[in-house]
Amino acid sequence: MVNRTAPTERTHNKQAIDTLIHARWIIPVVPEKRLYENCSLAITNGTITAILPSSEARNRFAPKEERQLGDQLLIPGLINTHNHAAMSLLRGFADDYPLMTWLEKHIWPAEQQWVGPEFVSDGTRLAMAEMLRSGTTTFCDQYFFPEATAAAVREAGMRAQIAFPIIDSPNNWSRNGDDAIEKGLALRDDYRSHHRIGVAFAPHAPYTVGDETLKKIAIYANELGISVQMHLHETAGEVERAVAETGQRPTKRLHNLGLLSPQFLAVHMTALNDDDIALIQKTGAHISHCPRSNLKLASGFSPVAKMLEAGINVSIGTDGAASNNGLDMLAETNTAALLAKAVSGQADALPAHQALAMATINGARALGIDDVTGSIEVGKAADLCAIDLSALEQQPLHDPLSQLIYTANGHHVRNVWVAGKQLLKDRKLTTLNEEELKQRAANWRDRIAGRTH
Amino acid sequence: MVNRTAPTERTHNKQAIDTLIHARWIIPVVPEKRLYENCSLAITNGTITAILPSSEARNRFAPKEERQLGDQLLIPGLINTHNHAAMSLLRGFADDYPLMTWLEKHIWPAEQQWVGPEFVSDGTRLAMAEMLRSGTTTFCDQYFFPEATAAAVREAGMRAQIAFPIIDSPNNWSRNGDDAIEKGLALRDDYRSHHRIGVAFAPHAPYTVGDETLKKIAIYANELGISVQMHLHETAGEVERAVAETGQRPTKRLHNLGLLSPQFLAVHMTALNDDDIALIQKTGAHISHCPRSNLKLASGFSPVAKMLEAGINVSIGTDGAASNNGLDMLAETNTAALLAKAVSGQADALPAHQALAMATINGARALGIDDVTGSIEVGKAADLCAIDLSALEQQPLHDPLSQLIYTANGHHVRNVWVAGKQLLKDRKLTTLNEEELKQRAANWRDRIAGRTH
Repeated sequence: MVNRTAPTERTHNKQAIDTLIHARWIIPVVPEKRLYENCSLAITNGTITAILPSSEARNRFAPKEERQLGDQLLIPGLINTHNHAAMSLLRGFADDYPLMTWLEKHIWPAEQQWVGPEFVSDGTRLAMAEMLRSGTTTFCDQYFFPEATAAAVREAGMRAQIAFPIIDSPNNWSRNGDDAIEKGLALRDDYRSHHRIGVAFAPHAPYTVGDETLKKIAIYANELGISVQMHLHETAGEVERAVAETGQRPTKRLHNLGLLSPQFLAVHMTALNDDDIALIQKTGAHISHCPRSNLKLASGFSPVAKMLEAGINVSIGTDGAASNNGLDMLAETNTAALLAKAVSGQADALPAHQALAMATINGARALGIDDVTGSIEVGKAADLCAIDLSALEQQPLHDPLSQLIYTANGHHVRNVWVAGKQLLKDRKLTTLNEEELKQRAANWRDRIAGRTH
Repeated sequence: MVNRTAPTERTHNKQAIDTLIHARWIIPVVPEKRLYENCSLAITNGTITAILPSSEARNRFAPKEERQLGDQLLIPGLINTHNHAAMSLLRGFADDYPLMTWLEKHIWPAEQQWVGPEFVSDGTRLAMAEMLRSGTTTFCDQYFFPEATAAAVREAGMRAQIAFPIIDSPNNWSRNGDDAIEKGLALRDDYRSHHRIGVAFAPHAPYTVGDETLKKIAIYANELGISVQMHLHETAGEVERAVAETGQRPTKRLHNLGLLSPQFLAVHMTALNDDDIALIQKTGAHISHCPRSNLKLASGFSPVAKMLEAGINVSIGTDGAASNNGLDMLAETNTAALLAKAVSGQADALPAHQALAMATINGARALGIDDVTGSIEVGKAADLCAIDLSALEQQPLHDPLSQLIYTANGHHVRNVWVAGKQLLKDRKLTTLNEEELKQRAANWRDRIAGRTH
């Protein structure tokens, strides 16, 4: 009798939840260096409400939806802290040119001719499709027509920080720095209460934004608590020219203008001396390390191991697809892990668990959203990525974390959730139409190549 | 009447061939910088007998088998000039250790305990499955029990140069240098007439093989026309210790011993000075550049752009999976292309067409088999690789060559032929059993972890 009634009683007592995900392996990232085996996540209203052994979870919860991940490793969704998403339409458009030739003869003219709301909408959606298919749940974007970017993100269901571009000179989107700030703050008002979309300042670079504009940004950022991201020390040449022109290294100049703080994200950061590193550390500013773009544009080597050792928060960005040429955060993290060893001369630098932290929780910290995402913890949003570890080229499986960082890439990602909503399901996108995006990309290629109008 | 009989007459006149492959795009590598569109390859007895427009090909040939590749790019099969294939069983077994800790505390003890013919056979087959799935048709292997490697290669249908390992100290396979040479020359006799398998000397490294053994190898190599491959200048520390102990840089010492010649392949080659580069150039020796292994083990940076500029033949190797952790030649070539730019400080260094040449024809030259493979030319073996360019993350397709080098990886490879035989067909292996290999890898993992005996 007891045996017959017990299951019924237990069913009655089960807690109703939205989703229960069972995973062979979970790496939560926080706490550090942990691997949960045969555990489950309970998700309600987009939030992780419990992490517990699967055997217990089955007795305790009555989920609307249940997923068994099999040979997949569950990790926090990846966080790409530097992208120009719409530039995916210029992927492979111009390679193998010196940096200034690439910009002045190819990228800038193409942007001037083609970039508008439609380009940004199509390019951003193509980029999001690629990001979701490779495990990214959150990205920080810096590009013209950020209204179009934000609208595309809202619709697709990703999490993003839209860092609107501020440049003193006129461009397709803004007449000058003030105009950009005005438009960007209006965008911020539109998204103030949006749970997935934040808006931040993106003064382009020290050499394209003057002191007056930067001072204004610093004041707004401090008063309104808005994040700031900026290309900084991308090349040694940039630093040398700045010293010649301003008498200061760019990092020092930004500090003097009141910009460096825990709300500031410095992108690239090659060619650093000890003073630069000390200043970043002291002010609590964050780094977005973009290894593949730095290599491809011959920008230089970022001293990642040294910065991590100094206690600086270093995250990872892909940069735009025009200089990468992809947005695969697992490939980017792999490159970061390998490169940091060679640059520091220490094969034990940037071990796998630290590389994964850079691609997740460090990214959340860099964007100021680590209360919401970046790790698999109770109370955080269910931003998740499940990676298949059963492929032949991942065998034998001595260590899931090693396979994740040193053998997996975006193609192994099978399932992705943002705020509890599944946006990639067995490699199928649920909110974006892959065939339509490919067709639109082909149309843009034809237009840019002058084959149609 | 004419219309009715003409097709019949043309059928009668059609030339019988084995296979006709129609491709939207072909990059033959030789001649350089060419892209054939809508062309076809005719293959008979494993050899390419014609390359011509598809419209003509359909009228001229009567193939036993016909393949339409759709949105795939056809290139020469990739050539991996440095591998320890069987070490794929130690993929992810030990990461993030300093080089000597990694070798002395992890890799060497594991090898001593486990390496024998069964390990080598299983590991090599796992590696070949991975290589074929990522477009490699030829590899050069350096590992213990090369008889087991050769037998696995013979059966799987790949092309390989088996470089048998020569070490003065005793190991699982040989008692000393003479013993290794004797066993290796016997192996060479066994495969003397094999059309896909060559046998070469692989003195392990300058610090594990003494002058007497190296002199013998130089004599045999010169007299019998046998290739030699050797780890050389893998780290700056190796070079410094050699100078301290022998008074000579390793490259110079090998030259004095008569080893450097067009039959010699130097693997790794970081920490080079101008004299080293001049010596390699003068002697016609070849390079196997292993960028991912060099990064992961913090070995150093190879001056690839400088060597190419000096006219040295530089090819690409993955090294073993224990230090990579994969055997994906497209990923390796991508890393080589990106890294060469940053190391040289020139974003136009190692452009895409040159990177592809390194992964194909340069590899064939390095192994002394460029009369047979390394390019798509009439008279060469049909060693081919077809890569899908239709994936979302490859759009828009401004340039097939750019997508190949800067966005594709092994996962995009769909079809592979070696000597006209299709070994990968729509991503299915035709000569190796994927499920069996995975099961064997899992068994080895359990044995190595001490979970079974």
